[in-house]
Formats: sequence, structure tokens, C-alpha cells
Amino acid sequence: MTEKLIGAVEAGGTKFVLAVANDVDEALDRAVIPTRTPAETFGEMVEWFECAVARHGPIGAFGIASFGPIGIDPAKGDYGTFTTTPKPGWRGASFPDALARFGAPIALDTDVNGAALGEYRKGAGRGCSTLAYSTVGTGIGTGVVKDGRVVGGFSHYESGHIRVPHDIARDPFAGSCPYHGDCLEGLASGPAILSRWGHDLSRAGADQVALIAGYLADLAANLVLLHMPDRLVFGGGVAKAPGLIESLREQTRERLGGYIAAYDEDLTNRIVPPALGDDAGITGAIALGRQALEREGTQ
Amino acid sequence: MTEKLIGAVEAGGTKFVLAVANDVDEALDRAVIPTRTPAETFGEMVEWFECAVARHGPIGAFGIASFGPIGIDPAKGDYGTFTTTPKPGWRGASFPDALARFGAPIALDTDVNGAALGEYRKGAGRGCSTLAYSTVGTGIGTGVVKDGRVVGGFSHYESGHIRVPHDIARDPFAGSCPYHGDCLEGLASGPAILSRWGHDLSRAGADQVALIAGYLADLAANLVLLHMPDRLVFGGGVAKAPGLIESLREQTRERLGGYIAAYDEDLTNRIVPPALGDDAGITGAIALGRQALEREGTQ
Repeated sequence: MTEKLIGAVEAGGTKFVLAVANDVDEALDRAVIPTRTPAETFGEMVEWFECAVARHGPIGAFGIASFGPIGIDPAKGDYGTFTTTPKPGWRGASFPDALARFGAPIALDTDVNGAALGEYRKGAGRGCSTLAYSTVGTGIGTGVVKDGRVVGGFSHYESGHIRVPHDIARDPFAGSCPYHGDCLEGLASGPAILSRWGHDLSRAGADQVALIAGYLADLAANLVLLHMPDRLVFGGGVAKAPGLIESLREQTRERLGGYIAAYDEDLTNRIVPPALGDDAGITGAIALGRQALEREGTQ
Repeated sequence: MTEKLIGAVEAGGTKFVLAVANDVDEALDRAVIPTRTPAETFGEMVEWFECAVARHGPIGAFGIASFGPIGIDPAKGDYGTFTTTPKPGWRGASFPDALARFGAPIALDTDVNGAALGEYRKGAGRGCSTLAYSTVGTGIGTGVVKDGRVVGGFSHYESGHIRVPHDIARDPFAGSCPYHGDCLEGLASGPAILSRWGHDLSRAGADQVALIAGYLADLAANLVLLHMPDRLVFGGGVAKAPGLIESLREQTRERLGGYIAAYDEDLTNRIVPPALGDDAGITGAIALGRQALEREGTQ
């Protein structure tokens, strides 16, 4: 076999998923290791990839979808290096340094953008030209993929911090965001829900689900108006609450008020849950590695 | 001279600006004709380009920045054709049909996207990687240019219709948008201002300017969080009101609350007026034509 392998890493705050994939992006081998210190986890990661190379052959490129904050601009010196993360010991830890011995190019993006790319390639976004993938859990984030590439500006998007109309009479909670109080994340993230009601949204009543779905509908409507995606995926723990996605569809349609024809119909196929579940991140990491390999091939 | 010319059209509701440009995108010739019926205006446009060809040589591609609604998806049958426009006689009028005799490819986008591209190439967006250009006048619209190309999803963006927090105690105006009432355009467009106060924003007091700037700051903050542009241009009649852009900078920084480092400083170079004035549209149309010529060259 002459085709080089892809090495893929989904780096999360509690675990790393590792994989090597073949020329049709299938994982030949896969492992999960706990996130401890960089010395331990990077060490284990490198060892695993060395074994994988011995078994399957050389790695042509790495794709990494990582927690952050981490440098994601290839033109900058901190590319692939954790920056201001509060996670003890991780500031300054660098994927390019850890993986240097493999001599392979690296494509790295955020965990959210990685999952967005995974869903686009193999999940709920298949067939789309433009996909917006949002995750609603501890934080709220969105990745947008267009024509197979994650889009962004000088940095990744920060959709969790948009300001949404907040009716204090209906929802007197002040919001939990340390920066903005009642921004979207301050009102609709998992911690905001827990701190407001003392339980998570899966144990909430219909009114509570509708309230949170309403805030997320403002995000959905903003994404439609400012990105015009063919489809919106909503993942993460909060989005799994019973009834949430149905209410989100209904309220998004209401918000748009018939102005965007494609979103003025039943939104069952427009606003959808993820299809890959826990596999979105590693699938996206493989896709990032593929992009790095293709860039290498054209240089 | 062997290089083919670019034919450029900025099509507005009251006038068409026409130009032919050379291989360095300089206008060799330029004219303004009134927008009447398609038969009259398209007729005059074709005649002008025929004279231009006689004087300067063949046109290699057309670039068009047009009012709408008009089909902007090259893959669809209505590309370059006015669709549901209320402008009498214009529904069904087609640029590709009118310009067919020149046998040149056409690249067409909205007037807002055209102006965004013009400012990116030769105006206030020079040096940016990602630029968000918004116009605030009769309507509100935004075009985003990234690495020299207008970005969009299944359609152009509709930033005017985002929902913004509306404090009814401070601003009891119900909003003028026929679809959404108090969406951004319903609160901050020229007609909304006139209908609320009976005068335009250039004759408004500081409180009124601050109110409108606050709504636009919600747009600016959303654009930062959902596009991460290096710079935001705000043009259009409303944006010209004395004090508006200063208040917009201040309130955008407040909205972002220190969360985005690049927007947590003096925003004089981040939020700027247009640099090309009335030339943005035709400059963008020339750039669109250049892109069509380059695509043609690579096929």
C-alpha cells in the first residue's frame, strides 16, 4: 500500500481519542486515553502513534480537533499550542512539538469546528453546501463548514456570546457569563440552567424547555441570516433534552417570520440533531488530516 | 493590447453606473444612465458597451452588482434575472439575456456584496483578510468578503432582519419591518428613524444617535462573534449621521465586554466608514468581472 495514513486526534478536556485512517478515511485503529498532564497524555499519544506506524505504515499527515484556547492560525507561532487555558499544566503544551518526530504536516482546529466538519463529511450535514453546527453544553459554540472547509475570520467563531433579547419578567435569572451576564451562554448553557433551576434541562417542564429553546432560536435565526446554511445541527447535552429541538424548530420559524422561504416550512430537515454522536470529533479530525495531506500533495 | 476588458455594471434602483476597465482594473470609460424600464435601460446599457468595444476592444467578462431581488446562484436558472422585485416591469428582466450578444461570461452579485468587494479591494478593507461591510439606509444589509471572495450560503446574507434587544421603556416605537416589526431594520433603518421622529438621524440629538448606534452595535457584535472580521465598514445614509460611528464603536466594545481581545481596544481602525463613497459598487463590479475572467481562463 503506497497511500499514506492519516493520524487523527480528538483532544478533549477529559479524554483524547486517537485514530489512524486509511485512504478512504476509515479508522484502522482507534484508542481512548485519559487527559492528564501534557507529559503523560502527549507521551501516551506519541507511543500509540508509533505503534500504529509499526503496524500500518507511515503517517502522511495529522488532523487534530482540540479543546482550547489553542492557536489555530497556521501563520502564527502559537499554532497548535495551548494559550490561556485554565487547565493546570496545559498552557504552552504544543501538538507540533509533541508530534515533530513523525515529520508530517498538521492541520488543527477547535473541537467544535472539528465536530462540524465531521458532521458535514459523514453525518447530519451530508449533502449540504453550507452547514452550521452548534453545540450547547458547558459552553455554546458554532462551527460553519462551507464546501468542505471550516470557515472563520481571524479566529474561530464565538456564537455563545451573542446578546439575545432577555425578558426579565419572564426569566429573572441574571445570567451566568462572567463577561456578559445574560448573553446566550449566560442564559442557555448547561451551567446557566443548573444554576437557575437546580436541575438540568432533561428534568425540566415544558415552559422551561421552551424558554431555553427560545434563546437558542435567536442563535439559529442569527445563523440563518448571517450564514444562510442549508442546515443547522444542534448537539451537546442541553440540545438532547426532550422536546427541545421541536420547540427550537418552531420558534426559529417564528423568529424568521416568513422572510426566508427555505426556513418558512416544516424545519424537521433544516434543524437536526447530530448523526455521529461521539464520533463527530474524530471524524472531523480525520477530515482535517486529509486536508493537510492534500495541501502537502499540491505543494 | 491583447488583454481583454472588463465590462462592469452597478445596477441601482435609480441609476446604472457602467464602466469598462483595463487589465489593472482601471476604468477606461464610465457612464451613468437612469433606471427606467428594462427595455430602455438595458437598451442604453448594451448600446454603451457596444460603443466601448468599438473604442477599446472586446470585453472578456462582465461583473455586475445589482439591486434585487435577483438570482445570484450561477447554478440556477434565474441567475441574473430579477425575481420578486416590486419595481414595475423589472420582474423577469435578465442580465445574461441582455448581454448575450457580447459572448462573455458574467459574474453577478447583490449591490451590497458588490460594494463590500469594492471596499475590500480598493477601499477601507484593503489589507484585511476578512471584511464585513454593512450599509444602513433604506434597508440594512451586510456583505462579508474573505480572502478576496464574497462569502454566502444558499443565498446572500440578510443582516437587517436579526432580532436585537428592544427596550420598550426607552424606545416605545413598535418598529417598521412588515415581517418582524422590531427587528434591526425595523428599528434602525432610515424609514424607521423617519417614522419614529419625523426627521432623519443627521438632525437628531445625541440620545437619539446613541439609541440607533446601540442597535447597530448589536449587529456589529454579532458580526464579530459570527464572522471574526478584521474590520467592519459601516456605510449608508444613516451611518453618516454626526457622532454615530463614534457611539457605535463605543457600544460595540461594551457589548463584547472584553471577551474578544482584538475588539477590546480603541476601535477607530476596526469600525470605519467606507473609503470609496459612491465608487464602491462599480469598483466591486469590476472585481467581480475580473473573477469571471480568471475563472474563464482556468477552464
